[in-house]
Amino acid sequence: MSYSIRKAERGDCPAILHLIRALAEYEKALDQVVCTVQDLERDGFGDKPFFECLLLEEQGQAVGMALYFYNWSTWTGRPTFYLEDLLVLPESRGKGYGMALLKACAKIAVDQNCKRFEWAVLDWNMPAREFYHKIGAYHKVEWLPYRLEGQPLQKLGR
Amino acid sequence: MSYSIRKAERGDCPAILHLIRALAEYEKALDQVVCTVQDLERDGFGDKPFFECLLLEEQGQAVGMALYFYNWSTWTGRPTFYLEDLLVLPESRGKGYGMALLKACAKIAVDQNCKRFEWAVLDWNMPAREFYHKIGAYHKVEWLPYRLEGQPLQKLGR
Repeated sequence: MSYSIRKAERGDCPAILHLIRALAEYEKALDQVVCTVQDLERDGFGDKPFFECLLLEEQGQAVGMALYFYNWSTWTGRPTFYLEDLLVLPESRGKGYGMALLKACAKIAVDQNCKRFEWAVLDWNMPAREFYHKIGAYHKVEWLPYRLEGQPLQKLGR
Repeated sequence: MSYSIRKAERGDCPAILHLIRALAEYEKALDQVVCTVQDLERDGFGDKPFFECLLLEEQGQAVGMALYFYNWSTWTGRPTFYLEDLLVLPESRGKGYGMALLKACAKIAVDQNCKRFEWAVLDWNMPAREFYHKIGAYHKVEWLPYRLEGQPLQKLGR
């Protein structure tokens, strides 16, 4: 089946939210998704966009997406391409769509002169991890991700 | 001794690079720093800023910094404050400057309506990790950071 990949626009926010919720369901965390269409419109397509998004479509229907933004590396002195979410709906898997989205992201990263392309994966997701190792990616074993949120964040920021 | 914290400006780039190199030395990775003053000027203070930076000064001399940018969380539907580098020069430690910079960052995060404040720490840096636990942060144990760079990135993006 033929497919196409394009940059998401403001009108795509309902489709993006549908895909975000599908990914959260796979990650067994749907109850943690409070994001709304309005949040996506405001932060992705307003004056100060915080993210960009690629959609993969089959016959005009979005069945996959890659949502990304730029970090910055003080060692390389260049932006880092950060892939926040990569998703293909279950019924459209096994057709190479994940790889097509990853390649489209890597092309943007290279074009933007990023020296690094980064993301995070759940430790139990072995099929994904094996796939990432196959394309030459590695787990940054020595760097531990930390988070502050909720009451402790409010308290520190007071 | 009194100190002050302010947003960095374009003219601060040489001081920022000095601090970045000092942090890399502490992390035993000075050989990996290829960032230049021009990189900092272009990506921090040009048309499309990729990062922002706070400087902590003692008598007009920058002795600490926090370099940060915004990620975006598809679950919270809000930007995430991401602290890339936090540093206080060795001769200025033990005065609470690290905490002062962290608090200034948390204030910005809360003001910008971020639901999360995140960073990464080297696994062997136990003093830092203990400090982070004390303020209520946690290690996102199940999320593994991955990176693609160099030849494999160029190949994927071709």
